[in-house]
Amino acid sequence: MIKEIKEHRSIRKFKSTPIDPKSLEEALTAASRASTCGNMQNYSLIVTQSEDMLQRISPLHFGQVERMNAQCVITVCADVNRFSAWCKQRDAEPRYDNFIWYINGAIDGLMAAQNLILEAEAAGLGACVLGTTLYTAEAIIDLLELPKGVIPVTAIALGYPDENPPLTDRLPVESVVHFEKYNNYTPEQIDAAWSEKEASEETKALLEENKLPNLAQIFTLNRYTAKDNVTFSKSYFELLKKQEFFNHQ
Amino acid sequence: MIKEIKEHRSIRKFKSTPIDPKSLEEALTAASRASTCGNMQNYSLIVTQSEDMLQRISPLHFGQVERMNAQCVITVCADVNRFSAWCKQRDAEPRYDNFIWYINGAIDGLMAAQNLILEAEAAGLGACVLGTTLYTAEAIIDLLELPKGVIPVTAIALGYPDENPPLTDRLPVESVVHFEKYNNYTPEQIDAAWSEKEASEETKALLEENKLPNLAQIFTLNRYTAKDNVTFSKSYFELLKKQEFFNHQ
Repeated sequence: MIKEIKEHRSIRKFKSTPIDPKSLEEALTAASRASTCGNMQNYSLIVTQSEDMLQRISPLHFGQVERMNAQCVITVCADVNRFSAWCKQRDAEPRYDNFIWYINGAIDGLMAAQNLILEAEAAGLGACVLGTTLYTAEAIIDLLELPKGVIPVTAIALGYPDENPPLTDRLPVESVVHFEKYNNYTPEQIDAAWSEKEASEETKALLEENKLPNLAQIFTLNRYTAKDNVTFSKSYFELLKKQEFFNHQ
Repeated sequence: MIKEIKEHRSIRKFKSTPIDPKSLEEALTAASRASTCGNMQNYSLIVTQSEDMLQRISPLHFGQVERMNAQCVITVCADVNRFSAWCKQRDAEPRYDNFIWYINGAIDGLMAAQNLILEAEAAGLGACVLGTTLYTAEAIIDLLELPKGVIPVTAIALGYPDENPPLTDRLPVESVVHFEKYNNYTPEQIDAAWSEKEASEETKALLEENKLPNLAQIFTLNRYTAKDNVTFSKSYFELLKKQEFFNHQ
């Protein structure tokens, strides 16, 4: 298996060493080599690396950037602004201010982001995907001065690793893959898919810490609660409209 | 740069050689090593490789599968069905039937998909991302028997390359990257970003073929028209609701 894919793990503690600009440039170039819908590249990568901006973006990721000592954050955005500007300049009438082009831009940006992570790792860097991006996307837009037609989808914290965590467990591959048709899960298959994870020492420690009877309840009651899920769904969808990815629908 | 990233190009013509099952398995395993929100893996990969199913999925990709002679199509889906089933089996109340978890599932699935493409390429396979997935997602759901909580995001055609196209051009990296703040484009920057693409022999041939004065109009009038964009935005968004990714909003 490609070394960087095989050895990928999220790094959440970085050294204070600044990132080699050549490595960053190579990772950004690697990102741009990913496949992209119609070769339109409807995404932008916003690099946060000044001390001031890292301090200002950190609270928008619930303090993670500072806690991790990340040296760089790359905010991955769906972006139809650039392509639309080009169209207007060529007497072509762009109509990419709608939902399908948000999804297309997100697809392109995320495939680019995975290239970026792998290439950064090839240069000895570590990476962590910041899911908080969706929760605070509006404040991120303000901070990074994103115009209409641009919206954050995810972000990647980068730096030289100051920890060496083991590989993270995954569900057995056969649990996420279906051949020919979706074989909906029997209760036994669900049990089997999660059995190793539920039996792990890590899970035992989590149950102790959360004072809950099982791992699923840690997710539903503590990590990703119904209230938060609904709140963030509403706010991100409203933002999609505000950023003009939901016109003419 | 990682060889597979550097040499990636979309392959649209495949040999009739069946895919080595070990290579496919390795690519699927590589997919599952990508980062995933909360380590929840809210995606599924549906493998279409029987002759019958390839013939049936091809029209849903506007005939591309057959034209390319693809030996396998992997449909990448956001999937909260599996995780929710697990929660219910553990007396935990899942509430992942909303927009933010569609996006989270899509993010996870797409980062996994990029790993899959690269690992397939490492085994000598070629890949093409099928953007048609979003247009015919409802028919794909029917064909693959996807339950509520599962929706296609993209698909990847695979096979051994029977062509060796040159690398595809890209906008200059500096055109898709912004440092610290989004620097909105001046008309001169837009011109500069597209100048190489517009001057290429490929573009000249396209203008001839499409009988249009510039490349931008080929996009807006022929490739991705206003009418199609609005139609597919509506249908995919309706489907998101039908698949229960828009409850409680």
